[in-house]
Amino acid sequence: MEHARRRYRAVVAYDGTDFWGFQLQARERTVQGEIEKALNRLTGSPIRIDAAGRTDAGVHATGQVIAFNAVWKHSLPDLHRALNAVLPDDIVVQRLEIASTTFHPRFDALSRTYQYQIINQPWPDVLLRRYAWHIAKPLDGTAMQRAASYLVGEHDFASFGKPPQGQNTVRRVLRADWSTENTRLTFTITANAFLYRMVRNIVGTLVQAGMGLMEPEAVQQILAERDLKKSAPPAPAHGLCLVQVTYPEEA
Amino acid sequence: MEHARRRYRAVVAYDGTDFWGFQLQARERTVQGEIEKALNRLTGSPIRIDAAGRTDAGVHATGQVIAFNAVWKHSLPDLHRALNAVLPDDIVVQRLEIASTTFHPRFDALSRTYQYQIINQPWPDVLLRRYAWHIAKPLDGTAMQRAASYLVGEHDFASFGKPPQGQNTVRRVLRADWSTENTRLTFTITANAFLYRMVRNIVGTLVQAGMGLMEPEAVQQILAERDLKKSAPPAPAHGLCLVQVTYPEEA
Repeated sequence: MEHARRRYRAVVAYDGTDFWGFQLQARERTVQGEIEKALNRLTGSPIRIDAAGRTDAGVHATGQVIAFNAVWKHSLPDLHRALNAVLPDDIVVQRLEIASTTFHPRFDALSRTYQYQIINQPWPDVLLRRYAWHIAKPLDGTAMQRAASYLVGEHDFASFGKPPQGQNTVRRVLRADWSTENTRLTFTITANAFLYRMVRNIVGTLVQAGMGLMEPEAVQQILAERDLKKSAPPAPAHGLCLVQVTYPEEA
Repeated sequence: MEHARRRYRAVVAYDGTDFWGFQLQARERTVQGEIEKALNRLTGSPIRIDAAGRTDAGVHATGQVIAFNAVWKHSLPDLHRALNAVLPDDIVVQRLEIASTTFHPRFDALSRTYQYQIINQPWPDVLLRRYAWHIAKPLDGTAMQRAASYLVGEHDFASFGKPPQGQNTVRRVLRADWSTENTRLTFTITANAFLYRMVRNIVGTLVQAGMGLMEPEAVQQILAERDLKKSAPPAPAHGLCLVQVTYPEEA
């Protein structure tokens, strides 16, 4: 009996702490490497996966989207269970479904949402130390919120990152705001797409405003300069998490 | 110049994942062992610490209280900074102050509060896997809340744990309730003191009610039996956290 080759789409969560980023590397432990190894083990064939975003080393995800082609002779829930049984503890497939044969998680994505967490208190929060940037100096949340507001809209973000390919550094930011819960500050940013290190460069810059080292309005000037050297050093990777990717059919 | 020997009191947080519990052991990594090592290194003298609660292997704390005597010739903030600089990443001293010479964190405590976290969704939450018990089967939060309500008040808790010393198994529970945020259920329980494994045995039993395997009212019967075999197996250690200890002067 012959089984059809199908395209699958999965929503994947991972703790980025112990990975050298998403993208496959010859010698290092990567998210892509672990998922492809698991699929290979379950199907007996080498399988290549596509992903919505290639997160950096140390960056987490709760809503990464991947796709792959595979021949699987059992049910879809069986593949889902088997994948989670075979994957290491720090990767979980949250959702698995059949996709159209042409679905591509990166090219078809309408928007991506990232969150960045900061713990703003004198000493680190020991249970969040892997998932939040600890800043001891008090931050001015109102200044950071005002600084963030200048990012919303279509802008040339050349000052905040390099394009992963080509020359186009124009991106459309749909949302960029801070929320506060006790000593935890969470930055949520949604854009049609992001430049390389864009969120971390943005957070590093907004924190400058929060520390009073820069006027919130200076974000406009930094954008206008279109020069990567004008933004602040990037915020550390471990505070960042890819939380959602949206597609047309979900509209 | 001679420096006074003083008694210090500290509020300590730790990630219990990589410890063999709080209490000192000859060969294993423990919270007490790491803190005493740090104090020894800073003061040049062997120092013994007292603690409000001896948490089990894998149990976390955000509000453990300890006390120790030490001779320190610099300022209190200096000792605080030095301690956090010397301690490993998974222990943080949140607060440090001078205590009365007779202060004892266990004997002087009026109440302890523990929280237990459950993630109730089909697949684990990868960023909470070290701090929450994952239960895939849907839980009835209303049943768990009703079951918990029978614990409040002064009862003989012999069915839920052994006394750390002596024979007295009567404890006064001041609060025992569940809160829900998306798929996360948090149990908060405050009592004058707890028996050994009492919170984990209680949570294990309440989850039985949440799964429909037991009537919430059965908690009354279990209490009345005064027999440890009547409660359910303990919930796993990694969902539990000691969050607060209160003392008379804080009333």
